[in-house]
Amino acid sequence: MSDSFATRLNAAIRRTKSITCVGLDPRKAQLPGELQTLAQSEHPDAWAAAYTAFCKGVIDVVADLVPCVKPQVAFFEQLGPAGMIALGEVIAAARDAGLMVIVDAKRNDIGSTATAYADAYLGSVQGDAASPWGGDSLTVSPYLGRDSLEPFVKVCDERSAGIFVLVKTSNPGGGDFQDRLRDGRALYEDVADMVTSLNASRLDEQGYGPVGAVVGATYPEQLASLRKRMPHSILLVPGFGAQGGTAEDVRHAKDADGTGAVVNSSRGIIFAYQRDGYRERFGEQRWKDAIRAATVEMNVALA
Amino acid sequence: MSDSFATRLNAAIRRTKSITCVGLDPRKAQLPGELQTLAQSEHPDAWAAAYTAFCKGVIDVVADLVPCVKPQVAFFEQLGPAGMIALGEVIAAARDAGLMVIVDAKRNDIGSTATAYADAYLGSVQGDAASPWGGDSLTVSPYLGRDSLEPFVKVCDERSAGIFVLVKTSNPGGGDFQDRLRDGRALYEDVADMVTSLNASRLDEQGYGPVGAVVGATYPEQLASLRKRMPHSILLVPGFGAQGGTAEDVRHAKDADGTGAVVNSSRGIIFAYQRDGYRERFGEQRWKDAIRAATVEMNVALA
Repeated sequence: MSDSFATRLNAAIRRTKSITCVGLDPRKAQLPGELQTLAQSEHPDAWAAAYTAFCKGVIDVVADLVPCVKPQVAFFEQLGPAGMIALGEVIAAARDAGLMVIVDAKRNDIGSTATAYADAYLGSVQGDAASPWGGDSLTVSPYLGRDSLEPFVKVCDERSAGIFVLVKTSNPGGGDFQDRLRDGRALYEDVADMVTSLNASRLDEQGYGPVGAVVGATYPEQLASLRKRMPHSILLVPGFGAQGGTAEDVRHAKDADGTGAVVNSSRGIIFAYQRDGYRERFGEQRWKDAIRAATVEMNVALA
Repeated sequence: MSDSFATRLNAAIRRTKSITCVGLDPRKAQLPGELQTLAQSEHPDAWAAAYTAFCKGVIDVVADLVPCVKPQVAFFEQLGPAGMIALGEVIAAARDAGLMVIVDAKRNDIGSTATAYADAYLGSVQGDAASPWGGDSLTVSPYLGRDSLEPFVKVCDERSAGIFVLVKTSNPGGGDFQDRLRDGRALYEDVADMVTSLNASRLDEQGYGPVGAVVGATYPEQLASLRKRMPHSILLVPGFGAQGGTAEDVRHAKDADGTGAVVNSSRGIIFAYQRDGYRERFGEQRWKDAIRAATVEMNVALA
């Protein structure tokens, strides 16, 4: 039996001494000039090739610095099937480079349809499962309830894979429904309790299960309380950097061993060459050096 | 300016005198033998070709009987990029046959990422938008709140497209979070009120807006009350047939004009050749005749 997803991700955190997750969000308008040139045709195949080249460039630069990357599927999907082929190439390149892959697709549906999504995105450690994209883990939406989450957990069991359930998202409107109180308890707290319950019979030696949780850096108090409420979940913390979350805000995401959480930054790292300070220091041509410097900076800030 | 999505869908309901939506859920194990043979290789391209051939077969048979079809993206996605190419072929074939297309993908994310999903799946009436899949409408999950729905509505405005927000889903676990009460009001009612608010400034002559709602046939009382609570939304009603919903259960989905709702059946129609009665009457080779008979039967039941 392979090590579980949680065991592997926490080991990767220890090995790299980093909880940084690099978000792979290729956006046409922000790609460095050399890749814009590669994609000068508006044909989706040209843009897909540019996305693959860009993301592989990012992967090469960060592979020895961080435990994981998180491709945002929406941007690949925006290109159509050509983008979905590129997504597969990017996931394979990341795994070949020793990185764990969190596929950010926020999927869900009922029963056997949820299983189809799990099959699509969750690969086995050996790569022998019938998963065309073959990620290590997938983000999943909870609105459809427990019987929509269980099919994913079953596939996690079979493939030593993981999921991250949306609990408290980083966007300003995240509270519209998630903060809704019943008897003094917020919806996101009920979702958190379901996450904990799904992990119960599935803990590794360190006490972590396959069901992680997405908790935004932009709500630091809730992040601290959710860390305690979901002791068996690795937290995926978006909203750091460009969205406003700071190192102080995410201080409570880690467990006492410094593991159990990864903090994502997308634009702040992959388009660092456009940021103040970095732009002057590196310029567009040295976009890879800017990415490496931004990753090291984030590692230091979160250490 | 093109007619809005709601105007076009209600017109299609009037023209066909049907509120049946045929769910295109290709499942490997249930495809008729002739298509299993087509896909005899385990290669995804072979299965994708079988899915396309099967769904085109369904489309040919039902095009003059119903207003719309609903491809379930998860099953196409399960095949990987080859399946996503097939999905595009199926959507194009349905639109060419005069059917409205509801892309059932239950997508969502924050801000500009939500826009990427909208771009991916919502086409313009003229087909000139940069949408690789080009559906007429898309199912969307509400957990991330209002600012995650607004980017979809904006694209609907630009392309005369529509969305269906998950309000009350048909699965047994749908109530876990959706029925959660606050001050006597369920979460799904708050989601319904947000749907109504998003439609407010966008009504067509009949009083319908671009933001529809998914409400399961398996909860008939809530369906009746949600029909009243969302007077400006076309309802997409899953859970009929194989999931247990009956014609009596969905009686309250329609408005006084007999429009404003579509009731989906997937397995009950597309795999009718496997159902008791139909199996004996048609057999596997006449799977298309079975589909046509099941569609007519559903139209009659819902009339």
